[in-house]
Amino acid sequence: MGFRPLHDRVLVRRVEAEEKSAGGIIIPDSAKEKPQEGEVVAVGAGAKSEEGKVSPLDVKAGDRILFGKWSGTEVKIDGEDLIIMKESDILGIVG
Amino acid sequence: MGFRPLHDRVLVRRVEAEEKSAGGIIIPDSAKEKPQEGEVVAVGAGAKSEEGKVSPLDVKAGDRILFGKWSGTEVKIDGEDLIIMKESDILGIVG
Amino acid sequence: MGFRPLHDRVLVRRVEAEEKSAGGIIIPDSAKEKPQEGEVVAVGAGAKSEEGKVSPLDVKAGDRILFGKWSGTEVKIDGEDLIIMKESDILGIVG
Amino acid sequence: MGFRPLHDRVLVRRVEAEEKSAGGIIIPDSAKEKPQEGEVVAVGAGAKSEEGKVSPLDVKAGDRILFGKWSGTEVKIDGEDLIIMKESDILGIVG
Amino acid sequence: MGFRPLHDRVLVRRVEAEEKSAGGIIIPDSAKEKPQEGEVVAVGAGAKSEEGKVSPLDVKAGDRILFGKWSGTEVKIDGEDLIIMKESDILGIVG
Amino acid sequence: MGFRPLHDRVLVRRVEAEEKSAGGIIIPDSAKEKPQEGEVVAVGAGAKSEEGKVSPLDVKAGDRILFGKWSGTEVKIDGEDLIIMKESDILGIVG
Amino acid sequence: MGFRPLHDRVLVRRVEAEEKSAGGIIIPDSAKEKPQEGEVVAVGAGAKSEEGKVSPLDVKAGDRILFGKWSGTEVKIDGEDLIIMKESDILGIVG
Repeated sequence: MGFRPLHDRVLVRRVEAEEKSAGGIIIPDSAKEKPQEGEVVAVGAGAKSEEGKVSPLDVKAGDRILFGKWSGTEVKIDGEDLIIMKESDILGIVG
Repeated sequence: MGFRPLHDRVLVRRVEAEEKSAGGIIIPDSAKEKPQEGEVVAVGAGAKSEEGKVSPLDVKAGDRILFGKWSGTEVKIDGEDLIIMKESDILGIVG
Repeated sequence: MGFRPLHDRVLVRRVEAEEKSAGGIIIPDSAKEKPQEGEVVAVGAGAKSEEGKVSPLDVKAGDRILFGKWSGTEVKIDGEDLIIMKESDILGIVG
Repeated sequence: MGFRPLHDRVLVRRVEAEEKSAGGIIIPDSAKEKPQEGEVVAVGAGAKSEEGKVSPLDVKAGDRILFGKWSGTEVKIDGEDLIIMKESDILGIVG
Repeated sequence: MGFRPLHDRVLVRRVEAEEKSAGGIIIPDSAKEKPQEGEVVAVGAGAKSEEGKVSPLDVKAGDRILFGKWSGTEVKIDGEDLIIMKESDILGIVG
Repeated sequence: MGFRPLHDRVLVRRVEAEEKSAGGIIIPDSAKEKPQEGEVVAVGAGAKSEEGKVSPLDVKAGDRILFGKWSGTEVKIDGEDLIIMKESDILGIVG
Repeated sequence: MGFRPLHDRVLVRRVEAEEKSAGGIIIPDSAKEKPQEGEVVAVGAGAKSEEGKVSPLDVKAGDRILFGKWSGTEVKIDGEDLIIMKESDILGIVG
């Protein structure tokens, strides 16, 4: 079963801490809002301007990303915990 | 009796939890703002820019969608409980 | 005596609950902000952009509409209680 | 002595309750923000966009209008109490 | 010594109450935010849009104006108390 | 060692009260937000619109300016206390 | 392992106080929001307008910058503490 995020939304799978140590990204405990690592599962068609123009997103399925800990909305799709967030919640692409 | 949402509004029928288990979408209990599954019943003509340009919506009647639990306004039309929300309240399309 | 709403404002006559049962729209008691049914009496020439372009409204006199309970400003014109609201306060058109 | 409102401002003379009964407009006592009837005395050249384009106003001197009770700023010009408000504070034109 | 206001700012000399009685403008004591009369001393080159386009102001040096009592910032230039405000703080031109 | 302010920022050296008496600008003690006199040390390339267009600033190095007391951020460069502010914090140019 | 900031974000390495004394920049203790010195490690492709137009950033990898103390989000990449901030959080370029 699929899920297509709408507009500038992105579906993200959180990457657990165990994997992170391999990738080299470690989030400091003391940070007040800790960014987390994730993998993009699906992206929307793009942000839509007031005039209706669609701007494709800069991230794509498979990208490893950092995002703010409190970004997005948690959902469970086909039994898996995922997060729907806006592309603007993504800090950058890892790798 | 029909109902035509205005502009970028969408009329949505909430899909009950029983159906959701079939579709594979389960919303985690612990989520602070739980998204819910619904079916689009009718859509407005589109968002209207300040200059009057209409941008048709990206969802259509029959789409299965996820939307934030507190989105929209509840109405009863022909005895059925429905929700009127803006397209921007829709997280994505299921299926 | 007439009244012409300015810009994107609309003059609305509230439709009482008795009539609503005939039309089939029943508003749930539990809703925190209950939409109400009304009839458009007069509409403004349209929303005006910052550049001065006028976009005609999508509702017209005679339309049956749903609107949020707390929308608009109450006035009495020729002894009749009416409401002046912005078109954006209208959820959709019934019928 | 004259007064020219600037931009999208309008100079308004409040119409007293005695006159209103003749015109047929009666404002309900229970309304939380009671609109009032007035007469436009003078209007500004028009709203000015960020790019400097001027859009002439839709009301003109002599128009009978309804406006929100708390709109505008009271001034006394040549001994007469008047109100300076923005055109957007005007609900519509009577008559 | 001169002072050139920047952009859409205007340098204003407050006109005292004594002069006002001659001009016919009297500000009511009961008004919650009393407008005051002043004379424009100098004006900026104009408001600058996000795209850098300059729109010349509609007031000029010598204009008698009304402005909100709490508008602007007080300065003393060459020993004289003056006020620097934005043109949008000016209600209109007297005379 | 140099410092180039970014975009619409300006580097300002505060002019002390002693110098001000010569220039003729005296700031009243009673003003709630006292403007201060300063000298522009360096300016950014200009404000950048959402579309990327750069609008050069209207102040230049050497200009004597008035600015709000609480504007900007204090820094020490080469042992000298300076202030980085946005051009919009500058009230006007003296002299 | 690399990290590409998204859009108008910039990856910054904080420059410690010891290095700062050499460069001549000393931040006053008394400042309520102390700017800090840093070195740009990587920059995003640029700010993206609502219409999708990308405006390249004005800072580049290697630039020495001043930024507000509380700007951005702290991350640890390959064991190094870095900060992801928006270009608009950067006050200017040193040197």
